[in-house]
Amino acid sequence: MADRRPLITLTTDFGEADYFVPAMKGVIYSLNPAAEIVDITHQVPPHDIYSAAFTLLCCYKDFPRTTLHVVVVDPGVGSSRRPIMVMTDNYNFIGPDNGVFSYVYQRERVNRIVHFTVGHYFRETVSNTFHGRDVFASCAGYVSKLVDWSKMGEEISDPVRFNTPTPSLVSDKHIRGSVIHIDRFGNVVTNITAAELTPERLQSGARVRIGKHEAARVLTHYAEASPNELFAYIGSAGFLELALQRQPAARLVEARRGIEVEVVIP
Amino acid sequence: MADRRPLITLTTDFGEADYFVPAMKGVIYSLNPAAEIVDITHQVPPHDIYSAAFTLLCCYKDFPRTTLHVVVVDPGVGSSRRPIMVMTDNYNFIGPDNGVFSYVYQRERVNRIVHFTVGHYFRETVSNTFHGRDVFASCAGYVSKLVDWSKMGEEISDPVRFNTPTPSLVSDKHIRGSVIHIDRFGNVVTNITAAELTPERLQSGARVRIGKHEAARVLTHYAEASPNELFAYIGSAGFLELALQRQPAARLVEARRGIEVEVVIP
Amino acid sequence: MADRRPLITLTTDFGEADYFVPAMKGVIYSLNPAAEIVDITHQVPPHDIYSAAFTLLCCYKDFPRTTLHVVVVDPGVGSSRRPIMVMTDNYNFIGPDNGVFSYVYQRERVNRIVHFTVGHYFRETVSNTFHGRDVFASCAGYVSKLVDWSKMGEEISDPVRFNTPTPSLVSDKHIRGSVIHIDRFGNVVTNITAAELTPERLQSGARVRIGKHEAARVLTHYAEASPNELFAYIGSAGFLELALQRQPAARLVEARRGIEVEVVIP
Repeated sequence: MADRRPLITLTTDFGEADYFVPAMKGVIYSLNPAAEIVDITHQVPPHDIYSAAFTLLCCYKDFPRTTLHVVVVDPGVGSSRRPIMVMTDNYNFIGPDNGVFSYVYQRERVNRIVHFTVGHYFRETVSNTFHGRDVFASCAGYVSKLVDWSKMGEEISDPVRFNTPTPSLVSDKHIRGSVIHIDRFGNVVTNITAAELTPERLQSGARVRIGKHEAARVLTHYAEASPNELFAYIGSAGFLELALQRQPAARLVEARRGIEVEVVIP
Repeated sequence: MADRRPLITLTTDFGEADYFVPAMKGVIYSLNPAAEIVDITHQVPPHDIYSAAFTLLCCYKDFPRTTLHVVVVDPGVGSSRRPIMVMTDNYNFIGPDNGVFSYVYQRERVNRIVHFTVGHYFRETVSNTFHGRDVFASCAGYVSKLVDWSKMGEEISDPVRFNTPTPSLVSDKHIRGSVIHIDRFGNVVTNITAAELTPERLQSGARVRIGKHEAARVLTHYAEASPNELFAYIGSAGFLELALQRQPAARLVEARRGIEVEVVIP
Repeated sequence: MADRRPLITLTTDFGEADYFVPAMKGVIYSLNPAAEIVDITHQVPPHDIYSAAFTLLCCYKDFPRTTLHVVVVDPGVGSSRRPIMVMTDNYNFIGPDNGVFSYVYQRERVNRIVHFTVGHYFRETVSNTFHGRDVFASCAGYVSKLVDWSKMGEEISDPVRFNTPTPSLVSDKHIRGSVIHIDRFGNVVTNITAAELTPERLQSGARVRIGKHEAARVLTHYAEASPNELFAYIGSAGFLELALQRQPAARLVEARRGIEVEVVIP
């Protein structure tokens, strides 16, 4: 498509108050004025690669094919952790090799992982504390101009992965999972998906427990719930969630990431 | 103009920390890579359609004609409330039919209101909890490509409206209004406009009362005020406001939306 | 470059919850649909021209040449402070003449400073409280369309400057500076740069003191530090900073802007 500009998304823990994000954008636009930059979020909790990985997971597929997703949550900046690009059938991903692409390795066909090693494609002066600007944005600018990856670094096969939290099947009727995210509305997102629990089984009277609280009903939308009723549903990213109608459920159930959630089927 | 890209604005209560807003943008860009997306705000208080309606009111006319304004503050998501497009002489508006366009109905010439009913124009899978992505962004993408509205749904004539708060004229010299917004600087925005009170009458010694506090002067700009003086002025959106110089007046007068404000003319 | 759109950056204290920023963008796009607008930040603390000046300083050079940087932190809006454009070899800057461009005057070759006086280039109605929209965005739209500056106002030579805080050299081995910024991660940015202290001298055992605390080591990156060790380093904007690994140093040392920082060389 002639008028299609190369899309680059940014996911960082830089916040919006500092010069970090605009510096990255300036570097990208300087290298490729045709780039179109879209913010995923800059409010990842500082250094929280799990949160960044989850947010990316929930929306990267909504972008057009060939979008370049850049993630900079980088507690090891300046150390020897590698700057990498993960090339898949549909998207390319650039970021530090610290596990932030663990979900990508699970869900996409990875064709190649490139370790950026060629200083020519970095910013003229590389600081030890801001590779978001000096390495990742700079390499993203070049990649968006279709520079051949093989000029920019070398292929690797041992990327860092973290164990993405997986629910366990205690029995046929008992699943044990955990909280992986609390969203803006206080909805509690768990790691339980249709892989563990078909919609049919969910709808057959499943009860969902978290701490001392229990959701007695699995609903399909918020408006079905009674006021003050804790209920469960499959959220828009495919995960089992807990909510209250127009109130933050996370406060009621004192949810934090990592807390156990159980589903019991009668 | 050949190089004009179709402009789409977004107003939501999704915040900037979650995947909600970028998912909407990804869907739009996937459908129409030429779209230009501008954020109005994503910090509408959760479920607050009045706040969303007010923020939109204050800036939608600053955008070029033909801009498509998408508003997703949608406490009834998944229920039977209708997804609609309001087509006016100058702009189109897409959002839930929950009253969020009440000011638009008052101030624009509405040519047509379309209820989106044709699933073809929705995202492939429509969740029950995220119509922002699955219905509104998707329809916005198609509308921005100039798909004929009559293919996407059917005309309706009974949109939901809320009563936009209106000041009452107690007497010729006494107007009773209310607070409709507190801004970033703690300025207190009321619903009183030039329709109730000409600038001439305002300047003729009007006093503005809120709770136990009174603004004894109506000024034309902040710099005229004395330090710690509560004063009134016509704000940049055309509403009577109360302020303190470089301090948040809302804190001093304990303003919240809905609180009464009186103007007394000597 | 044929496909290069004119870049305009925005730096304000308007936050992201109100209609202020989108109103500015709407005005710019209405005048110049080809403009590309990039947010630097809208989270400058209200009325804080020093903070705005610092954030701009740290990233304006990362943008392509000819970028137009618009800064609206404007406590004197509506008074007689002048709206200006600072034209330098590489960039143009638009904003109020209140000192917010003091660093630009120090670091760029200024070719001309224009006082915008010609109402034709302002928004049709100019409010007394929102020149961001009515004067600065409007003039930026016209400038981005390459309107001749001499039609828009007149040259001035006495812009307002604030004294950018400068470290003092107590002795050959003793430098006294101050905190100029706290970033998102709680890193403490001082006004001490390589101009006062070469990297060689810094690495020769310098100790950095703030209040009752002392950083005994100057490191090159975060990963070198021991847990809970307060350390110093040259940050990505060229200033000496104090940090803790993965914790906010500002909280430990109770840093605020203006607090004294001393460097002592053995």
